[in-house]
Amino acid sequence: MWKPDRLSGRTLYQQIADDIEQRISYGEFPPGSLLPSERKLAEQLGVNRSTVILAYAELRSLGIIESRSGSGTRVSKYKWGATPRHTPNWHRYTEGGSFLPNLPFLRRIREALRQNPALIDYASGELAGDLAPVEEINHLMSEKHYTSYLGYDNPQGYNPLRESLVSYLKQYRGIQTTDASILITSGSQQSLYLITQCLLSPGDAVAIEDPSYYYSLPMFQSAGLRLFRLPVDDKGVRPEDIRSLYKKHRIKMVFINPNYQNPTGLVLDDERRIELLDVASELGLPIVEDDPFSLTAYDGTPPMPLKSIDPIGSVLYIGSLSKIAASGLRVGWMVAPHAVVERLADARQQMDFGLSVVPQKVASQFLKSPYFQPHLERLRMHLLYKRDLLIEALHKELPDLVSFAIPQGGLHLWCKIIPEVNDNKLLEEAIRRGVIMVPGSVYGSDSGYVRFTFARPSAEEIGPGIAKFAAALRSVL
Amino acid sequence: MWKPDRLSGRTLYQQIADDIEQRISYGEFPPGSLLPSERKLAEQLGVNRSTVILAYAELRSLGIIESRSGSGTRVSKYKWGATPRHTPNWHRYTEGGSFLPNLPFLRRIREALRQNPALIDYASGELAGDLAPVEEINHLMSEKHYTSYLGYDNPQGYNPLRESLVSYLKQYRGIQTTDASILITSGSQQSLYLITQCLLSPGDAVAIEDPSYYYSLPMFQSAGLRLFRLPVDDKGVRPEDIRSLYKKHRIKMVFINPNYQNPTGLVLDDERRIELLDVASELGLPIVEDDPFSLTAYDGTPPMPLKSIDPIGSVLYIGSLSKIAASGLRVGWMVAPHAVVERLADARQQMDFGLSVVPQKVASQFLKSPYFQPHLERLRMHLLYKRDLLIEALHKELPDLVSFAIPQGGLHLWCKIIPEVNDNKLLEEAIRRGVIMVPGSVYGSDSGYVRFTFARPSAEEIGPGIAKFAAALRSVL
Repeated sequence: MWKPDRLSGRTLYQQIADDIEQRISYGEFPPGSLLPSERKLAEQLGVNRSTVILAYAELRSLGIIESRSGSGTRVSKYKWGATPRHTPNWHRYTEGGSFLPNLPFLRRIREALRQNPALIDYASGELAGDLAPVEEINHLMSEKHYTSYLGYDNPQGYNPLRESLVSYLKQYRGIQTTDASILITSGSQQSLYLITQCLLSPGDAVAIEDPSYYYSLPMFQSAGLRLFRLPVDDKGVRPEDIRSLYKKHRIKMVFINPNYQNPTGLVLDDERRIELLDVASELGLPIVEDDPFSLTAYDGTPPMPLKSIDPIGSVLYIGSLSKIAASGLRVGWMVAPHAVVERLADARQQMDFGLSVVPQKVASQFLKSPYFQPHLERLRMHLLYKRDLLIEALHKELPDLVSFAIPQGGLHLWCKIIPEVNDNKLLEEAIRRGVIMVPGSVYGSDSGYVRFTFARPSAEEIGPGIAKFAAALRSVL
Repeated sequence: MWKPDRLSGRTLYQQIADDIEQRISYGEFPPGSLLPSERKLAEQLGVNRSTVILAYAELRSLGIIESRSGSGTRVSKYKWGATPRHTPNWHRYTEGGSFLPNLPFLRRIREALRQNPALIDYASGELAGDLAPVEEINHLMSEKHYTSYLGYDNPQGYNPLRESLVSYLKQYRGIQTTDASILITSGSQQSLYLITQCLLSPGDAVAIEDPSYYYSLPMFQSAGLRLFRLPVDDKGVRPEDIRSLYKKHRIKMVFINPNYQNPTGLVLDDERRIELLDVASELGLPIVEDDPFSLTAYDGTPPMPLKSIDPIGSVLYIGSLSKIAASGLRVGWMVAPHAVVERLADARQQMDFGLSVVPQKVASQFLKSPYFQPHLERLRMHLLYKRDLLIEALHKELPDLVSFAIPQGGLHLWCKIIPEVNDNKLLEEAIRRGVIMVPGSVYGSDSGYVRFTFARPSAEEIGPGIAKFAAALRSVL
């Protein structure tokens, strides 16, 4: 992002006016489009609001922009030549389409993090940068004559990676499968997107956990699906709820995150796993099992997936490297019957022509390398250490105001706020004080919960972050 | 793909039966699902059909599979335990969804190339492996301490790549833009997908060239769009056709590939460019300009894009590295007003959480490196050489049966077959003789055209490939 140069001879407001004029002439802001508010632009550029007010006044006096009270500042329509020319009504186009925008809370969180990188970040659902195997991957990449072919890839994904995954899934997840049953995706998100777009039709009913990460994804609503809730207790979902939803609504698919569930951190009880697979096979109902966190099990013994005890193939299994290595690699996978893999690979070809071979090759080598096992051990130790720091800080700062179950794996702690609290006010106050986390209502819960991703902040930030959060919470009670 | 071991003590048919039994037990083929036909499996495994017949007979005698005449060989449903268990009806699921499957011709071409890698490939719309800057990219990757951050990326794409593209677009394409107006995508295909999903709604009318690569993409129909044709003559589309389509059908967007159009290789006439932009601004109609081939201009002076002379911002501009460097990198871009970029970035987040940083960093460095310009020069020389070899071969082998315009850039030659010919028969006969190309009807044309991608086969293959094609053509006339 461009910033004005304080050492330049030209005044700040003139520099800003010049920059905006150029952005307008280059098409970033077409005629008629809305410019950032004075407050927002001042924040972005790190200047006083009065400086932006001057810059806008300058542009107004040149006829380049116009302001009307209540409707903000817009690029003028009539500056641009005498003939009647119309820029497309981009506003109407961006309001159309079948894709719903992200939830306001999530857009707000993204915007706040972009504007203030110094926020202590308990919101982003990923590992801290120093927990990713950056050195190991650099080493793998510099070691080898890296690529020999850069053409379009196999639509199912890079063959050597699918072969590496056959071994990985057997060794780490107890899943016997074949390379023809594996589809490489850019992560769990793309796996879910392909399933909702290609195997389900608008109007279909599906069941998801409550609370669930999936409520944060307008993807399900964009696909026109009707969502039904499977309440989670301390042992996970109750399989009989699936049967009754099937009877009432003819649900066509069940989405489950059984190990260190996002956001609750819970593990589905063993007996319920058996029952759940029984219900699925009784009803001929597919289960989508999302399993991103298992290998973070702090004691080193991850719970086994449903897929490993799936007797007749009811389970579509989803995994990825995002939560156990690096989200930025964008490498995930799905295990499914070959006919399903073929269908999804064909649709994905149409959407994006498949994945880059470069990160797939990195992933394949990393999984097979001697670095993988030590990386996992280090990751588990660090996560356990951070979890304990978070718990300690919560006990210290908010002894009577919160309650939570202690997660045994995963990246998140799901925290109940005991007194009544307004999600929105709490989030804004936390941001103001320099910390950010996700309000529980994003996950379909009632108000009064918060998800802390303790994997994301540094160990040094965890205590001070909770002190800021505690001050924010007390100030809105 | 597994192959039986001819040196093993076990007979081939027993090895095949064992392998299929394992694939079934691992879920690749669930109960009730269709197994490959005897002919197809024999081809895949490189054995006689009679060997596969024996393997299937073995599995049938064990009750694992069942064959019914006319409906193929399926995995038995009743082998799997006494209780009434139902595997999901995957067939029904894969038939559902809003995403249409790829065209049968394209699936046939993909299958043929997979089964016989020795086919001379005039069909895949990409560069030969040795035209990609593989050495240069290896060098860039090994030179640097490669990655320092592997978290989720900016939803609009990797910042340094967007900055590199601001310079690239100015220097090579005459486009003045800002980094906030650029969205990084995985290629033109994803750019088109985001536009059709997010800016258009089911039922909307759009105009595309005839013939056009876009007819090969069920993506447009999957999005529920109504497609109207803009016939291409030797100067490209006629702008007045856009006006009349707008009057009749209220088209909401026009898709144009003005430079070395795919498949015709034509360049849109200069006067028509001006007229086209006039019509667009008169109607307030957005033009999507797809510009993948320009930098292949054999004489080194690429035609400038519509976007570079777009006075009021009617054009959404799409580019990529796929056709000028390497399709397997999966790096493309779109230039659009900031509000459009934000909307598409938000939707893409929901679909796949953004792109891998690794290929984006490679692309950014490559564009700025001293390798880029020499790579382009070498590419142009090789393409010109291959084009001339193809023309020579067509003149030699089919002097009276074909006619074509000589392309001045791009990867393809669009060839009219003068006598009447059946597309399907010609394709099958060509495959049988060891060469493959794309029938013109895939691009919305009438029968009687063929697209030859001369960029793809090696120089040595070009002549022999056309000899095979000529023999195939003569045998089906």
